Amino acid sequence: MSEQNSQQKATLPQAKDLSVEEQAALTSGTNPWSIGSVPEKGLPNYTITDGPHGLRKAQNLEGMDVDAAVPATCFPPAAGMSSSWNPDLIKKTGEAMGEECIQEQVAVILGPGVNIKRNPLGGRCFEFWSEDPYLAGHEAVGEVEGIQSKGIGTSLKHFAANNQETDRLRINARISERAMREIYLPAFEHIIKTAQPWTVMCSYNRVNGEYSSQNHWLLTDVLRKEWGFKGIVMSDWGAVHDRAAALNAGLNLEMPPTKTDDKVVHAVRDGQIKPEQLEDMAQGMIDLVTKARPAMEKGAAGYRYDIDEHDEVAREAAREAMVLLKNEDGLLPVKPGTKLAVIGEFARTPRYQGAGSSLINPNKLTSFLDALKERGVDAQFAPGFTLDGSEQTQALTDEAVSAAKGADTVLLFLGLPAEAESEGFDRTTLDIPAKQVEVLKAVATANKNVVVILSNGSVVSMPWQGEAKSIIETWLLGQAGGAATADVVFGDVNPSGKLAQTIINNLDDDPSMMNWPGEEGHVDYGEGVFVGYRYYDTFHKPVVYPFGYGMSYTTFEISDVHAQKSGPQSARVTARVTNTGSLPGAEVVQLYVAPPACKVARPVHELKAFKKVFLEPGASEEVTFDLDSRAFAYWSEQFEGWKVEGGSYGIEVGSSSRDIAQIVDVDVDDDGKRMKLTEWSTYGEWADDPVGSQALNTVLPELEKKYGHPIIPDSQLIVMFLRSAPLSGMSMLLSAEIAQDLYTRTMEEYEKIRG
Amino acid sequence: MSEQNSQQKATLPQAKDLSVEEQAALTSGTNPWSIGSVPEKGLPNYTITDGPHGLRKAQNLEGMDVDAAVPATCFPPAAGMSSSWNPDLIKKTGEAMGEECIQEQVAVILGPGVNIKRNPLGGRCFEFWSEDPYLAGHEAVGEVEGIQSKGIGTSLKHFAANNQETDRLRINARISERAMREIYLPAFEHIIKTAQPWTVMCSYNRVNGEYSSQNHWLLTDVLRKEWGFKGIVMSDWGAVHDRAAALNAGLNLEMPPTKTDDKVVHAVRDGQIKPEQLEDMAQGMIDLVTKARPAMEKGAAGYRYDIDEHDEVAREAAREAMVLLKNEDGLLPVKPGTKLAVIGEFARTPRYQGAGSSLINPNKLTSFLDALKERGVDAQFAPGFTLDGSEQTQALTDEAVSAAKGADTVLLFLGLPAEAESEGFDRTTLDIPAKQVEVLKAVATANKNVVVILSNGSVVSMPWQGEAKSIIETWLLGQAGGAATADVVFGDVNPSGKLAQTIINNLDDDPSMMNWPGEEGHVDYGEGVFVGYRYYDTFHKPVVYPFGYGMSYTTFEISDVHAQKSGPQSARVTARVTNTGSLPGAEVVQLYVAPPACKVARPVHELKAFKKVFLEPGASEEVTFDLDSRAFAYWSEQFEGWKVEGGSYGIEVGSSSRDIAQIVDVDVDDDGKRMKLTEWSTYGEWADDPVGSQALNTVLPELEKKYGHPIIPDSQLIVMFLRSAPLSGMSMLLSAEIAQDLYTRTMEEYEKIRG
Repeated sequence: MSEQNSQQKATLPQAKDLSVEEQAALTSGTNPWSIGSVPEKGLPNYTITDGPHGLRKAQNLEGMDVDAAVPATCFPPAAGMSSSWNPDLIKKTGEAMGEECIQEQVAVILGPGVNIKRNPLGGRCFEFWSEDPYLAGHEAVGEVEGIQSKGIGTSLKHFAANNQETDRLRINARISERAMREIYLPAFEHIIKTAQPWTVMCSYNRVNGEYSSQNHWLLTDVLRKEWGFKGIVMSDWGAVHDRAAALNAGLNLEMPPTKTDDKVVHAVRDGQIKPEQLEDMAQGMIDLVTKARPAMEKGAAGYRYDIDEHDEVAREAAREAMVLLKNEDGLLPVKPGTKLAVIGEFARTPRYQGAGSSLINPNKLTSFLDALKERGVDAQFAPGFTLDGSEQTQALTDEAVSAAKGADTVLLFLGLPAEAESEGFDRTTLDIPAKQVEVLKAVATANKNVVVILSNGSVVSMPWQGEAKSIIETWLLGQAGGAATADVVFGDVNPSGKLAQTIINNLDDDPSMMNWPGEEGHVDYGEGVFVGYRYYDTFHKPVVYPFGYGMSYTTFEISDVHAQKSGPQSARVTARVTNTGSLPGAEVVQLYVAPPACKVARPVHELKAFKKVFLEPGASEEVTFDLDSRAFAYWSEQFEGWKVEGGSYGIEVGSSSRDIAQIVDVDVDDDGKRMKLTEWSTYGEWADDPVGSQALNTVLPELEKKYGHPIIPDSQLIVMFLRSAPLSGMSMLLSAEIAQDLYTRTMEEYEKIRG
Repeated sequence: MSEQNSQQKATLPQAKDLSVEEQAALTSGTNPWSIGSVPEKGLPNYTITDGPHGLRKAQNLEGMDVDAAVPATCFPPAAGMSSSWNPDLIKKTGEAMGEECIQEQVAVILGPGVNIKRNPLGGRCFEFWSEDPYLAGHEAVGEVEGIQSKGIGTSLKHFAANNQETDRLRINARISERAMREIYLPAFEHIIKTAQPWTVMCSYNRVNGEYSSQNHWLLTDVLRKEWGFKGIVMSDWGAVHDRAAALNAGLNLEMPPTKTDDKVVHAVRDGQIKPEQLEDMAQGMIDLVTKARPAMEKGAAGYRYDIDEHDEVAREAAREAMVLLKNEDGLLPVKPGTKLAVIGEFARTPRYQGAGSSLINPNKLTSFLDALKERGVDAQFAPGFTLDGSEQTQALTDEAVSAAKGADTVLLFLGLPAEAESEGFDRTTLDIPAKQVEVLKAVATANKNVVVILSNGSVVSMPWQGEAKSIIETWLLGQAGGAATADVVFGDVNPSGKLAQTIINNLDDDPSMMNWPGEEGHVDYGEGVFVGYRYYDTFHKPVVYPFGYGMSYTTFEISDVHAQKSGPQSARVTARVTNTGSLPGAEVVQLYVAPPACKVARPVHELKAFKKVFLEPGASEEVTFDLDSRAFAYWSEQFEGWKVEGGSYGIEVGSSSRDIAQIVDVDVDDDGKRMKLTEWSTYGEWADDPVGSQALNTVLPELEKKYGHPIIPDSQLIVMFLRSAPLSGMSMLLSAEIAQDLYTRTMEEYEKIRG
């Protein structure tokens, strides 16, 4: 068998060896869950399946129905995983997923999804990583590295600007190039440059007028030419409208197949597609098969992963995903001997993942009540409310209150039912169901010691937070969430999660609400780069819990922040973090860069580095961050590139975007990029440019002599007027003759100096 | 003489009688302040001059310098005038301006400027009318009607989207068509449709990529074809970049002349400009001359206006421009015998207009101190502070405090010095100079009875407002402002001004700040239609004083609001307003329309009618408003036109956007506009469309029979998924065969029903 395989390997054809028909066949799936194939030439139809926080392999690969998927480990979805701020841990879950793919002979897992959480109502926020592109990229890269380390491919998705579910199959996202480059692309860019995912999945939507599936700028200019992507691009399921346009734009694979390969062949014959383009796209598919083959052979040879071990990885991941938001009177961790009431249906019926293409059929599922039983902990349980849309009953409330009365501490499980958030539609409110709040209020009246434990895939409002002494935001924790929650509640594990998404109470303060979710087939990203904390912090808006925030059972101090220039546009920053409390724990040291006043409007600060540090009580560690030019740059539409302006940048090091321990400054050199001055450059631009001002300083005295009076009037008001006037249009304020002279002579001098 | 004139008149040539050279000459000024001419053919170079709140005629028409303009009456600039909400009064000022133009032989006055106050920092807000396009259009139309009733032309400016000064000569305003149509164009549209201004002036800036001066969509498609504009379009001074492109776009007149008529002639010869286009543009200029001629002849014959009478009009206008913001303890009007201290340099050196092209050399100027003298009122005066940038001195503060101590009531004049706001640059803060606030605080400590009287061209913040019992916002009042202010302060006139611009303290709450004032040559109007109160009211933002707000010395009640449908998309609304106090006064009855939930995001309400009513104490009047379909419509980019959705619309009648006396509902019929359904229409769109659902209702049972099971699964979640899927793309969730069947059969049925 292995001899036969290596023989096949030796004879794998290249695209140039295939007919146009065979090449075309490779650019479309063989069935809904496998890539294109040419069996007679030894090119197999490897299976690819949904993810991204586990494997979702259809029992029947010929159909679209994946309701009964092959069981797999359900790791925490990105909503939870992203709160870990721990790329190494994320990589570990990726390795486990890769192993499951080998066993199931799945060549590519469709994830991770690194779209930005532009608005907390986004129906798929639970599958995405953050409102911040730096964090999203530097976390999700771990999943890609982990999976691919096992010889299995990933599909970085949805490229690009799929930030909502409403009308997602058609909507035209109208976004400035600066917002694209600074907010919506960098997570993709970082992962592609550092981890080379084997595949990228294009989004359904249009970006500035063109469907992503046939967007040459996205799929070829940016992805391949600028970023050096070497893998293949596949379509989201049903995203291709015009196969010729898609192939020309750089899309290798249409999924699911529409049985239109003959049209591709005709398009090549008609000259609509150049033969070398089709060959190139097909070659990408062969390269993918080549890379996947060893793992697929290993799977075929009977490889088996360890289910229990993977459950343990899922539990470990879930432990770091929880964010302790509040902990009055040290109510948590629960002390031994505490009489507990556990209230809320979620404790028995956990909400642990979201609905849609990422729905995993878990190998195992541990509820919080299961975990209590395993621990041998007794607790009075009351469901409190149902998870369906039915009205609250007095009996359920009474039962909850009665349980609360008899306890020292109440663990109240609240959150969003599965129907509240899913792929396919956006939410319309941040609120949890009113009946849950009703139960919280009744319970809090009966017992002051209430711990709220939340399960939800995206931000929920917390106008009720005063009713709880402690709050743990668990997000969605995957199959081992119940056990992991118990680990944190009872203090076996010290919580260390940090918010990857700002918690707000009021949608009126969200900057995208003026353009959410768009209308009549388009959505304007009117807030530009001011997404999430970039908006809230710049415009001083109230938040409930800021980006990067999260408590611990111990305390930390960040100190000794130093920044040193390491190059014209780079710096090395060091900081000390100390566990000043009495328990082991982890702190995430976060570095935000605060730019000086620039020629463009910039957020007051942006996350540019972070590091999670585990420390024993009293222990201390120095962390080092190396900042390159991108840490200081903005995207300039004028230069069509990154621009670093010279000046003094604030280096803010702290434990959330609003808890900065120390700020130091670092002087950064201007990168020297400068627009060539023209007749349409204003007098102000001429005066501010080193060469332009040199020219003016020659010409102005010369003209003053010629005309016998100063050329630029001695009036602050007129000078302000002139500063905005193009050099060729100063006759608005100067006499036509002088204006003409000034313009002609200054242009001459400028060219002379520039040589 | 008159015989000779009528002879000339009889022989005025038409454009077709002119050579190409002569036609070209008409499309460019003869000098900086006159239109094009062909003297040998009897076509004169009539003078046109700046405005818009008075005449600004250069002493030397050959130069650009208008510092020493011919004296004229300075009426209140639009900042003040707009607070009157009184189009009749505005028309009266227009008539007076028209008379001054006759005397000075000025054929066209360059105004009014109806650009929207997108952001209160806009440097030229003082010259513009409102943040609301309905109000701006329905007020400024009075000026156009008044001036043109005298046989003098106006120039409606700056067309379009000149909403800032920063980089105004080049900046590319990137605006959605909906925001253009609903916010930035309607003031122009209303005035053009109802008053046919003789000329329109294009703006400097670009609109969605194209300079206004050569923007065919703006100057021809919208202005002439859609709105039926019959006059000529001239350039703002220096706004033409390419004369051929401008002429082709529909620009008749380049100002000031660049002596490039030969290029126009060449462009006609080269085929770059069609001869009939040049002829058409030139004919517009001849039509203008024809219209202006009678008034110009009257002026040449020695017509003289009455300077004192016009000063009286200016005073009358100023009286209605003031907005009483606050009046604790009935401190105003000042009772006879009150011992007064008058503090603030503005009382002696009034700030009464803004800087730039609208700067009038006034016939007369009355300060508040002058007015006191005229009235024979004694008051202790202290300047309090200087108007220049110098530091506050203790002596000035002490003098003010001492004056305050000796008085019963303090009249404290605060505001923005001339340097703080001007054409040519935008402000960077809403604050008045700190030294003025310092004086206010010192004075308020010495005397609790402080009346603050403000002079400023655009909104200033008022974090200090607790220090004053009364506040009058006078904006800029023109030459008779001092006398008019005294009229209001002493109660000869009851204030009746209402805010045309929302007063806020915090720029962080302004929705345009994320994109203000733009960068790198462009500005994104990211807030879309949510400008001014449309944003603050929809998103529940705090304001200091809302749009439409203003107090009186008497009180009013609005009652008996009734709305009746008067057509499928129109309604008649009546309301009663009663003077319930003891003084005569005027109330502005304001009508806002609150749409139901629509397919696009709409402001919570919008001003759609208003009426100012003068009433004796106890008197009452019924006002009637007729609302047409535009009162209910939004601009649909999909339909490329106005769309009225059927539903129940709230009719809110009140005295400010946040003081609604009564709300009644009116049912409006849908206008029936409907998109033709296609394969890319979603299942939801098919189901919601009357014909589409009829087709589905035929096909679904048919397919159910064929396949032996329901086609649309009985799952709320899946239905929500399906609703956003295009009819042609339902294979995402249904089997490929069923999806194909459903698509084909439904399209067939749809076409069959439609016939």
